[in-house]
Amino acid sequence: MNEPVCLSVDAMGGDYAPEAIIQGIDLFADSAKDKVSKILLHGQEPILKPLLQKFSNAASLCEVRHTDTFVAMTDKPSQAIRRARGSSMWNAIRAVKENQAHAAVSAGNTGAMMVLGKVLLGMVKNVHRPAIAASWPSPHGYSVVLDVGANVECSAHQLVEFAILGEAFSRIVHKKDNPTVGLLNVGTEDVKGNDVVREADQLLRDANLRMNYSGFIEGNDISLGSTDVVVTDGFTGNVALKAAEGTAKLAASVLKESLMSRPLYRFGALLSRGAFQKMKDKMDPKNSNGGLFLGLGGLVVKSHGGTDAEGFSNALEVARRMSASDYMDIIQQNLNTFAGKQSGASS
Amino acid sequence: MNEPVCLSVDAMGGDYAPEAIIQGIDLFADSAKDKVSKILLHGQEPILKPLLQKFSNAASLCEVRHTDTFVAMTDKPSQAIRRARGSSMWNAIRAVKENQAHAAVSAGNTGAMMVLGKVLLGMVKNVHRPAIAASWPSPHGYSVVLDVGANVECSAHQLVEFAILGEAFSRIVHKKDNPTVGLLNVGTEDVKGNDVVREADQLLRDANLRMNYSGFIEGNDISLGSTDVVVTDGFTGNVALKAAEGTAKLAASVLKESLMSRPLYRFGALLSRGAFQKMKDKMDPKNSNGGLFLGLGGLVVKSHGGTDAEGFSNALEVARRMSASDYMDIIQQNLNTFAGKQSGASS
Repeated sequence: MNEPVCLSVDAMGGDYAPEAIIQGIDLFADSAKDKVSKILLHGQEPILKPLLQKFSNAASLCEVRHTDTFVAMTDKPSQAIRRARGSSMWNAIRAVKENQAHAAVSAGNTGAMMVLGKVLLGMVKNVHRPAIAASWPSPHGYSVVLDVGANVECSAHQLVEFAILGEAFSRIVHKKDNPTVGLLNVGTEDVKGNDVVREADQLLRDANLRMNYSGFIEGNDISLGSTDVVVTDGFTGNVALKAAEGTAKLAASVLKESLMSRPLYRFGALLSRGAFQKMKDKMDPKNSNGGLFLGLGGLVVKSHGGTDAEGFSNALEVARRMSASDYMDIIQQNLNTFAGKQSGASS
Repeated sequence: MNEPVCLSVDAMGGDYAPEAIIQGIDLFADSAKDKVSKILLHGQEPILKPLLQKFSNAASLCEVRHTDTFVAMTDKPSQAIRRARGSSMWNAIRAVKENQAHAAVSAGNTGAMMVLGKVLLGMVKNVHRPAIAASWPSPHGYSVVLDVGANVECSAHQLVEFAILGEAFSRIVHKKDNPTVGLLNVGTEDVKGNDVVREADQLLRDANLRMNYSGFIEGNDISLGSTDVVVTDGFTGNVALKAAEGTAKLAASVLKESLMSRPLYRFGALLSRGAFQKMKDKMDPKNSNGGLFLGLGGLVVKSHGGTDAEGFSNALEVARRMSASDYMDIIQQNLNTFAGKQSGASS
């Protein structure tokens, strides 16, 4: 699919919405010329219209779709769903359902997005539940880790589904030709781990998928980029992702403090400040912003709630790449193979 | 207990044994004068004696106890146990059992150490299984995270036991007066997480322990030092610890590469190299080396397998602090309270 895509944006979701959202669209519009035909911007028109006047790139792409209500960041999923119908998030996702847009993007409440995604779009055939995929910096660019929070408990079958979904994500968003896939464990020997990961390992070996499966990997392999795709349950993945973010922040703040502790160090740091910026760019979560709810019947991109304009622009780029790809076809081949194998095994 | 302690060391365990081990003892002996009376050094005498001649601090503290065999780093636990009797690791731990030493220290095979620890020392009353505790750098010094690998699946009761064991570790090794304790989860609201962490949270709130329990924390809280003690199962803890180590390494290598990319940056880095050393010292796992098998009927300190002399010296210091403390008394109070509560609840 090479024609320009249409994206559907929830302007009201995120800690710095709607300003950061519109500014993010403005940044993105500049780089995505000819690749995006239109952005449907869902939210409160009286607020959005004056903001758009300040951002001409964004204004030229956006069509405002008024909604009175929005889902609050602090709403629990159960509350969010009660008040979600007709909200900016609901309408952003519904536009995908109704084929008005290729993908929906929101920096809003994660739990609500997942539930609305399932209610409005349903699941891809042969996938049980959606997973959230996150991009993770590595020496070779980025890896994708999933699930990072949608499923606190997973079966071995779900882990295989995540492997299939993540492999396709890596091809499309990270442009890897033949991505390697690893299963996160506490050791690489086949006796290690719990029953679920051992069963998933066996299923992945036996399933005859079109997939470059590498077996078990450990926590340190994620940042080493040992595999392009890292498969794990949503509890472990969420903790690992946040632990890594916290560590990167700690390292940066310890370094900053040390560099400020003496005039000579401060002078040295001034000379090499361009290098620190490079490091920051690489390690900053917002540069890999744009988690996908993989497995839904349509494309829904989740931007970090605390995103700024640059981060939101990156989430829009993830949505654009997925929209312009044949993602659904790529995953369907492996999903069908796996489902066939399973029904064959149980019959 | 203020009299000098006696430590029992497996000289043959670890990737760089026995050289790194003896050099580590030499470093430690210099700083621990008057606090350590003797080190029982278990291993192959014909190798150890000549090495000791090169390290006079170590030689003055060590009493060599010859053993013919040792457990290989690559042995699976099952193999290790078959060949463990009479090995340097076995004898190092047996010396604690026989009250010849206060604590055993080894950089050897983790799985074998845990099994030998259980076989030779048994468990502390009211603790089901041992946990491995690891120190983790934070802005306020160090936190302790447990379990980081001994138990890939844990019950809610075990998590409460880990909280009790870790709280005492924090008091003794990290010298925290009234350590805060957090339970690792994917969110801080009480509806988040799986059944096990929610039940453990409730047990910790209801148990009337002498403990400063803070409730749920998330992955990024570990490096923020939000609590002094971080409680989790061995699967999640192992992945989080290794993911953080990998991230710290990636950040350092990205920074190094950026600094080397231009002459000006290289010059700036040269001026501020002292600051980089400070950061390295803080983030380097070997400076917090010395994981404990908590919950065993005696003290067994696990040093990182790839440790160098400095790391092993730090592991010896952990063993010394634990040996000089009233750890067993501190934990017994909370363990008894919890066990009483549980038997009361079930009767």
